[in-house]
Parts: sequence; C-alpha cells; structure tokens
Amino acid sequence: MDTKHRNICIDADMGEALGPYNTGQDEALMPLVTSANIACGFHAGDPLVMARSVELAQQHGVCIGAHPGFDDLRGFGRRRMTMPAREVEYMVTYQIGALKALAEARGAKVEYVKPHGALNNMAHEDPELADAIARGIRAAGRDLLFVANCLSEMVAAGERAGLQVLHEAYADRHYMPDGRLMPRSRADAVIRDAEEAAERTLRMLEAQELAALDGTRLPSRIDTFCIHGDEPTAIAIARVIRARCAAMGVMPKTVTELAA
Amino acid sequence: MDTKHRNICIDADMGEALGPYNTGQDEALMPLVTSANIACGFHAGDPLVMARSVELAQQHGVCIGAHPGFDDLRGFGRRRMTMPAREVEYMVTYQIGALKALAEARGAKVEYVKPHGALNNMAHEDPELADAIARGIRAAGRDLLFVANCLSEMVAAGERAGLQVLHEAYADRHYMPDGRLMPRSRADAVIRDAEEAAERTLRMLEAQELAALDGTRLPSRIDTFCIHGDEPTAIAIARVIRARCAAMGVMPKTVTELAA
Amino acid sequence: MDTKHRNICIDADMGEALGPYNTGQDEALMPLVTSANIACGFHAGDPLVMARSVELAQQHGVCIGAHPGFDDLRGFGRRRMTMPAREVEYMVTYQIGALKALAEARGAKVEYVKPHGALNNMAHEDPELADAIARGIRAAGRDLLFVANCLSEMVAAGERAGLQVLHEAYADRHYMPDGRLMPRSRADAVIRDAEEAAERTLRMLEAQELAALDGTRLPSRIDTFCIHGDEPTAIAIARVIRARCAAMGVMPKTVTELAA
Amino acid sequence: MDTKHRNICIDADMGEALGPYNTGQDEALMPLVTSANIACGFHAGDPLVMARSVELAQQHGVCIGAHPGFDDLRGFGRRRMTMPAREVEYMVTYQIGALKALAEARGAKVEYVKPHGALNNMAHEDPELADAIARGIRAAGRDLLFVANCLSEMVAAGERAGLQVLHEAYADRHYMPDGRLMPRSRADAVIRDAEEAAERTLRMLEAQELAALDGTRLPSRIDTFCIHGDEPTAIAIARVIRARCAAMGVMPKTVTELAA
Repeated sequence: MDTKHRNICIDADMGEALGPYNTGQDEALMPLVTSANIACGFHAGDPLVMARSVELAQQHGVCIGAHPGFDDLRGFGRRRMTMPAREVEYMVTYQIGALKALAEARGAKVEYVKPHGALNNMAHEDPELADAIARGIRAAGRDLLFVANCLSEMVAAGERAGLQVLHEAYADRHYMPDGRLMPRSRADAVIRDAEEAAERTLRMLEAQELAALDGTRLPSRIDTFCIHGDEPTAIAIARVIRARCAAMGVMPKTVTELAA
Repeated sequence: MDTKHRNICIDADMGEALGPYNTGQDEALMPLVTSANIACGFHAGDPLVMARSVELAQQHGVCIGAHPGFDDLRGFGRRRMTMPAREVEYMVTYQIGALKALAEARGAKVEYVKPHGALNNMAHEDPELADAIARGIRAAGRDLLFVANCLSEMVAAGERAGLQVLHEAYADRHYMPDGRLMPRSRADAVIRDAEEAAERTLRMLEAQELAALDGTRLPSRIDTFCIHGDEPTAIAIARVIRARCAAMGVMPKTVTELAA
Repeated sequence: MDTKHRNICIDADMGEALGPYNTGQDEALMPLVTSANIACGFHAGDPLVMARSVELAQQHGVCIGAHPGFDDLRGFGRRRMTMPAREVEYMVTYQIGALKALAEARGAKVEYVKPHGALNNMAHEDPELADAIARGIRAAGRDLLFVANCLSEMVAAGERAGLQVLHEAYADRHYMPDGRLMPRSRADAVIRDAEEAAERTLRMLEAQELAALDGTRLPSRIDTFCIHGDEPTAIAIARVIRARCAAMGVMPKTVTELAA
Repeated sequence: MDTKHRNICIDADMGEALGPYNTGQDEALMPLVTSANIACGFHAGDPLVMARSVELAQQHGVCIGAHPGFDDLRGFGRRRMTMPAREVEYMVTYQIGALKALAEARGAKVEYVKPHGALNNMAHEDPELADAIARGIRAAGRDLLFVANCLSEMVAAGERAGLQVLHEAYADRHYMPDGRLMPRSRADAVIRDAEEAAERTLRMLEAQELAALDGTRLPSRIDTFCIHGDEPTAIAIARVIRARCAAMGVMPKTVTELAA
C-alpha cells in the first residue's frame, strides 16, 4: 500500500496548564491536530482547564481523549513512581471518569485514553503496569480506545483487556533501538526541526516501522503520531506535517475515525 | 402525622481516609447507615479508598453519594477557600465523575451528592456558590439527588437547577438560631452523648424542625440525618438512633428510597 | 524634602515557577529590581526554583526576601483560605526556614519577608492574621525585616512583634479609597502602561502618599515599590521607573540598605 | 567488649500526622526513645504538627532529627520516585531548613537527619542519590549528623560529604541477606512480637552485626535502633527494649551523645 492512500491521525497533549501556569499553545495547536489528549488534573490540568480544553476541541472538531498521569503536579508526571497495580488501575479510572463528566456536560464524549509521561514510559515495558492501565480504562468504559505506544507492553495489555488498541508513534521524539523513547535526559531526545520531524513521520507512516536514531528499523503498525504540545516547535511541526499530508493526499483522521 | 409512620434516612461521610491515614470507622459504621457520602479525593480519599468504600457500601446495601469538597488535603476541606463560581462548578462535576466511574465499574451507581465541610458551610449562606454546586451536580447527572442542609441556600439552588432536593439535618451537631451549624471552633459544636443525640434527632424528625442550642425551633422539612464518621461517638450515636427507630417503628430508608 | 534626595527600593516577586511551568521573566527582571521576594514552595516555587532564584539574585547583587503564601499551588496562593492563626504563624516560619537554608548554603542571607497574595490581602485588614504573620517572621529571625503593605494592619503587627517594618506600595496596581489594593477581579486593578505606572510611582514616592484610583490621597510612609513579575508589563515598568529615577537622581536601594 | 558497657540509641519516626490524620502514637512513644526523627511536611507532617513534635521532644529531653522524604503525601513517601540528584539535594535542604526554623523558635536544635521511606530505601543502594542527600544535609548545616542505614551507600556518602555518620539498624524490621530491609510488600517484613524484636535488637547490638531473616550475619557498626512509630506494636517493642537495657546496664543515649 502506498502512502497516498494511507490515513494519518495526529494527536497532542492538551490542557497541560495549571491555575496561572500554561506550558502549552493549545489555541494554536488544536486546529492542527485531529485528536486531543486532555490532562486530567493529576500531572497537570484542573477542572477549569479541562472544561476549556473540551470546549476548544469541540470548536475544532477534534476527537477527545483522556490523558491520565501520576499524581505529581510538581514533577509534571515525569517522575517515575512505584505504585501497586491496583492503585494505578483505580487512579486511571478516576481520571477518565472526571474528564468524562466534564465532557458529557458539554455534549462531548471521551473517545480514547493515552497515558502520560512516566506512567506511559513505565508501562511501555512493564506488563503488570500495562495491564493495570488497561483494566483501569476498561472499567471506565468498554468502548474506550487505548492509544498505546507502538511495540509496547500496552499493546498486548489492551488486547488482553478486550480494548481496541491504536498504535502510536512520536513525531518529535527519537527512538532507541529497542523501540522505547529516547529519555529526555539525553540532549538528542527531542526532534525540533520541523522539516526533519515531518519527513521522518511520513516515512515511518509509509513504511509502518519506527526509525530509531541509530538507524534500526522496527516494523510496527502505526496509527497515530503524537506531537508534544509543550515543545516550542509543536506548531511548526504540526503545520509541516499537515502540509505534506495535503500534498500527498494522506488523509488526517481522528482516533475514532481510524478505529471505525 | 405521627413519628411512627415517618421514614428516616441516616447518612454519614465515608472514605475520608488517605494513603496510610484513616480517620473513620467505616467498617463499623457502614452497616448502621442507609446512605454513604463518599469522599472524592480532594479533601480526603484517594482512588483506592473510593473503590473500597463503594464495595463496602454495596456489601451492606447502602446507597452511594458523592461527597465533593475543596482541594485541601492538609485542611481536610475544612478551610474556607474563595474560588470563582465557575471553578467550583467544574470542581464538583470533576469529583462526581471520578466517583461515578469507580462506582459503575463495580456495578454500583452514584445516587446523590452531598457537599463537604467548608464548601457546604459557605454554600449554606451564599446563593452564588450554592448555584455553582447545583450546576456542577446537574452537569454530572440530571437524575442526581442533592442532599442539602435544611434551610440553606442550597435548597433553593437545587430547585433552581431542576434537581430533586433532600433536606438534611445533623444528628451530632448543634445549630445556631439562624439554622447554621455551630462552628467547630466552639467547644459545644458537637454532640457526643449518644442518648442525647438520638433523642434530639427523633424529636427533630417528628416535629420537622431544627432545634437550635439556644432553644430556637426552626420549622423545616427534614429527610435525612447526617452522622460524622470521624467523630469517635459516631457508632454509638448510630446504634442508639437505629434502636430507637426500631422501637418506634420508624423506617430507615436510603436517600433513593426517600426520593422515589 | 524633595524627590531627588529620596531613596527608592524596587522589589518584585520572583521564583514563582513550578516544575515545568514558569510565569515569570525573572532573568530579565532581576537586574532591574533591588530586592527579590522569592516564593517558598507553598503557592509557587520548589526547592530547585528557589535555589536558582537565590543564585540569580546573588549574580545581580539583589537583596533576598522570603515570599510565603498559602498552601495552594492550584490557586497560586490567590484563594483566600481560613486557617487558625497558629497554623499561619508556623506556616510562615516553615517557609522562611526553608528558604534560609537554601540561601545560606549559597552564602546568601534572607533579609526580609513579604507575604504573598491572599495571605497578604487578608492580613492587610485582619489584625489577628497580621500578628500571626509577624510572630511567624520573628520566630524565623529577630533581625528579619517585614515588608508590609502601607496603611495595613501588618505595619502595626510588625511593630508589636518588635520587627523593623518597611512600608510597601505597588507600582502596578490601583488602590481603593481605603488603601487596599483594587481586587484583581476588577478590570482596572492592574496598571499596564509603563509611563503611567512610573509617573504615578514617583509621585507617590515624592508625596509619601498612596493615590487611589478615585483620586483619594492617603498619606503614608512609602519605602519600597512592588512590581508584579507575572505581569507581562513588569519589565517595561521597571525600566521606565529606573530611567526616571536615574534622570532625577533618585537612588535605588535594597530593602536592607533602606533599613540600615 | 561485652554488651553491658555498650551504649544504645533508640530513635523513632515522629510527627507523621497530617491535619486531622494521625498514624502515630507520639505521646506514648516519645518518653521511650532518645531521638525523634520528625517528618518535615513532604511525606507527612505540617508546620503545626512539626512545632508540636519539637515541643513534645523537648518535654522528654529527646534529641531532634529531621526526617525528610519525597513530596508524596498520598503515598506517605513510600512510593519510589525518580528525581534528578540536584532536586533531591535541594529538597533535603529545604525540609531540614523548615524544621530548623520551627525548632530554633522553640529554643531547640535539629541535631541530625534521617531520610524517610522510599528516599531512604533508594539511597541505600544508589550512590548518586546517597551523595545528593549527604550534600543536602551538609548544605543545611555542617555539624548535622547523618543517621544512615547500616551497610548502605549513605554511610560512604556521608563520609565523602564530611558529615559524621551514625549507623542505624531497625528494631522491628527484618533484613535481607544483602543488608537491605525486607520490603513491606512481604508479609514477614515487620517484626511485631515485642520480645522477639527486643531480643534480636540486643543481640545485634552486642555482636555489632545485622541478622538477616535467613540467618545471614552481616558485621556492621550499629549505633542506633529505629522503631516505626506507625506500627501498632511500637510502644510494646520500645518498652521491652528499655526494660532489657535497664536490666543489662546498657545505657540509652541520644544521637548527639553517641556522636560526642
């Protein structure tokens, strides 16, 4: 199958603000994505920010996902934390439920779940944690889609839990040869050049394989590409990807449209 | 109508634990109440405690309510906080949604909402805040019942929002002549003698009036009586009330049964 | 005494960042002030931000003050909270002690204390709360200076506690006729025009009186002017004030130099 | 050297309460220990609890130590968290400074530092983290003593930082053959029989070796024994140890007396 008939989904973390603080550029980024991973108040976000993020997604016809993270405001959910699997499971259900209520009050629907930060990174390689997340999602709704890192334990965990899984790659992050994200502690973890990011993204979409920084190619289904809204280059990367897609006839879809 | 044909509902705050901490005596108190106001993680509680509280309520056939409070773990939600009405509204929806998801995952249903602590006390006399709470409840579910302090602004706010309102009195707290609770800063705020509390409760139920400490009698519909689970005397008070009710043929009902 | 022989002290809130969030423009503002009110981790700031703020102040020869606030990260310390006076007292000592340790480890000294946000606003008119803050400061160091709102209860409280008090006005905020700050809920609370702010500041300094928005003039000793670092206009206002002072021969001093 | 000429120091975690919550039995335990590790508000404790804990220690002539932990109220500091070494260092200084200010305001002195929970467990085997803690202690006071787990990386780190190190064993916790504490996730981690705990403690003191549950004996200097104040058996264990010591002429000393 050649690229031009492919679908692409572009998701980004949204609502990662807090009271007076704002890391993101949600207003500018929302029109450029198809799906919004909305922070649920544990690693970032608060009820007001969540409600506004839902409304912003609605205005742009963007599909809404829950973005649960560790209870770690000061560390932005990027600190690894050890918690019993059961607590993780309930913590995930709690956060999804909170966003669902705020979304449904606005006539919107939470369609999918994408874990955040350290929770996502730990579950990438820990099947017990991945299962806890999958159970937490399923408890919050059997029809919720699980947006899981390509080649991660979460893919299998989602399937074990009977969830429909979408495979997610990162448009702006380098990979290690084993398919994990390059940790942010490394200077070369983040791709900040928009052209480079866009080109690599479309190449990975076409080949359906992750491209590690060292050249390793890891075949994987890829459904959606994540852009980090808190990176200053997010807007530029999203714009170039959209423009390239338009030029190639690649269709941007929402998480829900892909899953249909 | 004489007392013996009356219904009585007994509710108590539950799940007000946190990690290693536990103020309550939920295991002992749950069989004695008909309705459980479960803390939602802001003033107390966490996802694990919430899930266990739901399960404990289910085991005893106890009706489940959400007990949202201010975001104030260190102050147990008893510190008054000024927040814009809109933030309060969304904060209430958030907390109800979180509990709903954990309850529904267990086949249980959140039937009603009872605000906690300083949020409840402030909304007692502040119509704008009362409206914010009522809107927050309605946004989380049109069929949710609002358990509101007798003679408070919340009663009218609930009705304005189209919610069914149940009128709540306190079995273990003294009233001021204007119908507000005696503040906890006063030594005589809390009634700790079980016989006294039970007798006063049944008298207020029969007369359908609040009895202030100074002798003032304030006519009000009274549907349910709250017992504070974090008071050491909670169990004793609940037992004596149950025994007196049994002796008099007064029927303990859940919040839902009363509303039916 | 004419203005040109006057001293002026310019202070600003600094270190009001948190993990990944940053409201301020500390790098640009620090060289323009003489004294830095460093957030202590309760309403904003964390140990890393605090240490860096101390270092930044040292680089620019800026005098260091502690800026304690309510335990309210999500509300940025701008939510009024009711707490027993004793808890406020200890909370203030705690925050000063934390900053002192981080400052002393860098060979720096915390010279003064300026309360933040809602804590400051409440203590403006509440003598009991003002006394609690003054006791909390004195407990952390008898030689700490108390930077208190002009015409507030904190001035008298500081003197009662035996502290040296410096009187602070706001360069970028309008006053009400009773000398309290115009609340931020009002659209005209903040002065964003740099020329207007600078002119008004120097006029208040010369006249030693607060100028309320309605024209009321309130005589008061004024030692230092606060600029809000989280306002986008902070840098411009500070620059214009510095330039005008230079032109008039008014000497910018630190809080410590003024107190000497 | 035979046991009867030995000194023993008994320390316990204190002030691990929070607002309305109280895990401990500090009033009963304080007279039985010689040294109190006082929580500093991150994993437990708040300024009010800290001030009261200092006063309680003073009443009983008990030596005061700071007990810093991770910023993790909901997990009681028992969740492992990954943080950059520099943040850990500053976090430790911050907490010690806060307690120092509250202690000094009461004429008391913080004499030593003992890390809490997951921070302590991680630093046991991680030299970088152990160094960060040691630097954080030294920054808060060059004369602070470091109470470090026997046979841990913290012992060497403390010495590298130029701190005087006291070697601590646990009176109520089993050891693994490598000298680490048996994790609490194991049912046999905690020793709850007072006689067994006391006997084992005195045996370890006399032999100056840790006794692992599997029989392994690990020679180590042992200066002080920790009792967990949040275990229901803490009082009983402390009483039996004190009685045995008295019978054998073993002298209970404070951390400071041992270090002298």
